[in-house]
Amino acid sequence: MKGVRSILDQNAFRFDTQKSTPTNLSRMLEKRLKTVGPTSVLFYQEPLHIVRGEGVWLYDDSGNRYLDVYNNVPSVGHCHPKIVEAVCRQMAELNIHTRYLHGAIHEYIERLLDTMPSKLNRMVMTCTGSESNDMALRLARHWTKNHGVIVTEAAYHGNTSAVTEISPSSLKTSEPADHVFVIPVSEMPQAPDEAKTWFLDKVREGIQTLNDRRYGCAALIVDTIFSSDGVIADPAGFLKPSVDFLQSKGSLFIADEVQPGFGRTGDHMWGFARHDIAPDIVTMGKPMGNGFPAAGIVANDRLFASFNDEVGYFNTFGGSTAAVAAGSAVLDVIEEENLIANSKEVGLYLKNRLTDLAHKYEEVGAVRGAGLFVGLDFIDPSSSGTPDPAKTSKVINALRQNGVLIGAAGKYGNTLKIRPPLCFDNSHADFFLNQMERAITETR
Amino acid sequence: MKGVRSILDQNAFRFDTQKSTPTNLSRMLEKRLKTVGPTSVLFYQEPLHIVRGEGVWLYDDSGNRYLDVYNNVPSVGHCHPKIVEAVCRQMAELNIHTRYLHGAIHEYIERLLDTMPSKLNRMVMTCTGSESNDMALRLARHWTKNHGVIVTEAAYHGNTSAVTEISPSSLKTSEPADHVFVIPVSEMPQAPDEAKTWFLDKVREGIQTLNDRRYGCAALIVDTIFSSDGVIADPAGFLKPSVDFLQSKGSLFIADEVQPGFGRTGDHMWGFARHDIAPDIVTMGKPMGNGFPAAGIVANDRLFASFNDEVGYFNTFGGSTAAVAAGSAVLDVIEEENLIANSKEVGLYLKNRLTDLAHKYEEVGAVRGAGLFVGLDFIDPSSSGTPDPAKTSKVINALRQNGVLIGAAGKYGNTLKIRPPLCFDNSHADFFLNQMERAITETR
Repeated sequence: MKGVRSILDQNAFRFDTQKSTPTNLSRMLEKRLKTVGPTSVLFYQEPLHIVRGEGVWLYDDSGNRYLDVYNNVPSVGHCHPKIVEAVCRQMAELNIHTRYLHGAIHEYIERLLDTMPSKLNRMVMTCTGSESNDMALRLARHWTKNHGVIVTEAAYHGNTSAVTEISPSSLKTSEPADHVFVIPVSEMPQAPDEAKTWFLDKVREGIQTLNDRRYGCAALIVDTIFSSDGVIADPAGFLKPSVDFLQSKGSLFIADEVQPGFGRTGDHMWGFARHDIAPDIVTMGKPMGNGFPAAGIVANDRLFASFNDEVGYFNTFGGSTAAVAAGSAVLDVIEEENLIANSKEVGLYLKNRLTDLAHKYEEVGAVRGAGLFVGLDFIDPSSSGTPDPAKTSKVINALRQNGVLIGAAGKYGNTLKIRPPLCFDNSHADFFLNQMERAITETR
Repeated sequence: MKGVRSILDQNAFRFDTQKSTPTNLSRMLEKRLKTVGPTSVLFYQEPLHIVRGEGVWLYDDSGNRYLDVYNNVPSVGHCHPKIVEAVCRQMAELNIHTRYLHGAIHEYIERLLDTMPSKLNRMVMTCTGSESNDMALRLARHWTKNHGVIVTEAAYHGNTSAVTEISPSSLKTSEPADHVFVIPVSEMPQAPDEAKTWFLDKVREGIQTLNDRRYGCAALIVDTIFSSDGVIADPAGFLKPSVDFLQSKGSLFIADEVQPGFGRTGDHMWGFARHDIAPDIVTMGKPMGNGFPAAGIVANDRLFASFNDEVGYFNTFGGSTAAVAAGSAVLDVIEEENLIANSKEVGLYLKNRLTDLAHKYEEVGAVRGAGLFVGLDFIDPSSSGTPDPAKTSKVINALRQNGVLIGAAGKYGNTLKIRPPLCFDNSHADFFLNQMERAITETR
């Protein structure tokens, strides 16, 4: 029996309920079934046909507007003109791989490396976060000669064979493999000292267990905002003793920045910075090109060299001139529009107002977050705080009817995952909060 | 000791030779070393700084023009205005994932499925060919409950952990893993009946060996033009008895169309069609978006459903509205510009003229190919046809100096890999052939 709810299924449209959907969508749903098939997740009890995007807004085929509180790929805003222009200019001039020299990739990587601890001094560009995490595992395994990995219980690190093994939230019917040690992070105490000690004990146990099973520990990998685990931002710094211990044992720490990276957590470019740690490997993806596929992996040059001695690696689309143009424009916009500070300020306002909701509505449990990545739990008030995924699902669908797009996360699927584009402002937050109150009461 | 030459290293710039490079490149090379690092392959003894592309031509920073006989990603031509326009229009309007409905992806997939055998009735879009082949392996393993795979000796199927295991050409120091059975396709006889029987015997042996090793055989995977094995196009149909036998034993045939697909082989949209076979899984990538990252995997709906019962799969960038716009525009251009027929005609002209060269120059061995994918071997005439990778490398670098970009492939790295954009015409072929003659004699 699986303990973790697949994050992909929590808000999935079920094709077997299709008869109850409106007629104007029926034909599209039928075509979808006959082309993509039912294996590709479609959101909402009543799926949306989105036709346009701008900033924090998406528009459906009837002209209805939706505040986007879900999508973290178009991180500087849907269809940001500076990104579109940069990609178009580059695609019209030259779009090619990295086996010829082009200066822009060097400048781009230099800008990114400047935001990292100095030991992280080289970067390989890939096409997706999955490819980056897949390569991170291989770097760690080559370097340590170990195979085991420590992950958190509802983690998601991508979709390849290797990273699905370390993504418990993707496994529908099976438990994680024998070489994967899982930390039940939903049980972590909240007090800073207790949290540090608890996580350290788990890492210590993980290394011991993986040694006992003869895999050894290659790495601890965490999404540094714990997105799929339901957003665990605090206490800041709780990872530090664990990472120090892990590294002292010769294992590597992989910071999966695919979701927290590029300013989302509001304090810094990267989520790991909140924990005052220096990862051995940093991976990034989703928001890197604001929707143009781009991703990367950063590590010390000796790790890459060791890997390269044994295996040839080339990524066709990784670091293409168009990907670099998109990535550079994203960095420009983050700076020009002051998006990291905005994420911090608006995120704090949002978190405080959501905490007010938690005091006002007994269905609302804990509120956690950093910057514009906030998690809010729904609980069953009649049973002293039991997670309530059914309520969460109802609220998500009510918000969709009320013009707000949002999703769920967490071991029990009862955490609203609030992560709008970083150009979100207080007026957007107010609109969202009003619709939240409406959805909470409407779904009682 | 490794028998196969890593395809990535054959034409790699060596950073330890940096001092001999011209001064205007030195600073770029130094920056490259300090950002990307030496692990990312850079082409040529004297690397190129390419700044512009148009059709079949690339231009360096001094305004020199190079005929592109290497790049198969910008398959309908570098910076094709229709592709650029389609991507720009879509990126400015909406660029989002597949969890909302959008009609264009259904129409796009319908167009692609219409080119396939009817049992191949569903498609999942991914971002890269590597992701597609990685998923193909998982589909095959879930479906057959077997783990073993049969591949060819110098195959390349991508860069993830799982597909690197089935890519002998990526392994620099080790032999393929125990669950991988390798077919030494360079030894295959050329007569049609003999080739068919030889390949069938190898597949039979592969299944038996994988059964004996208790892995069972999940799949035979081949690039249907055998790109990395040095381009093996003929005899057309030689795969058929093997695939029939394999499928009768319950194993799956995966056609890796990442390189031969989208009309390159000149007869059909897909390379497998030359062999009169119906694959169980077809994967595609590189030219699919003409440089916009896009890829896909096609199979029967029951395979996807079986996989989906066990594992959640989602691909953030796969099937995004922009990727579909690029892909649809590529199909339009292939039709409008009659590129499959062009590939056949110009490819035949090119192959015949290259065969003339083989008669004229004793260093030139066999010429093989279909459409605009031709392989030409360099051999040592003094030792009755021994492969000559050193000559190949010299010719590649001479051609670069003479305005032609090209690469190598094959078990011994002695096969010129000729695969220009599909808008290549006879005048381009003539230019290439003239420069070939010059390079062959200059490097004596």
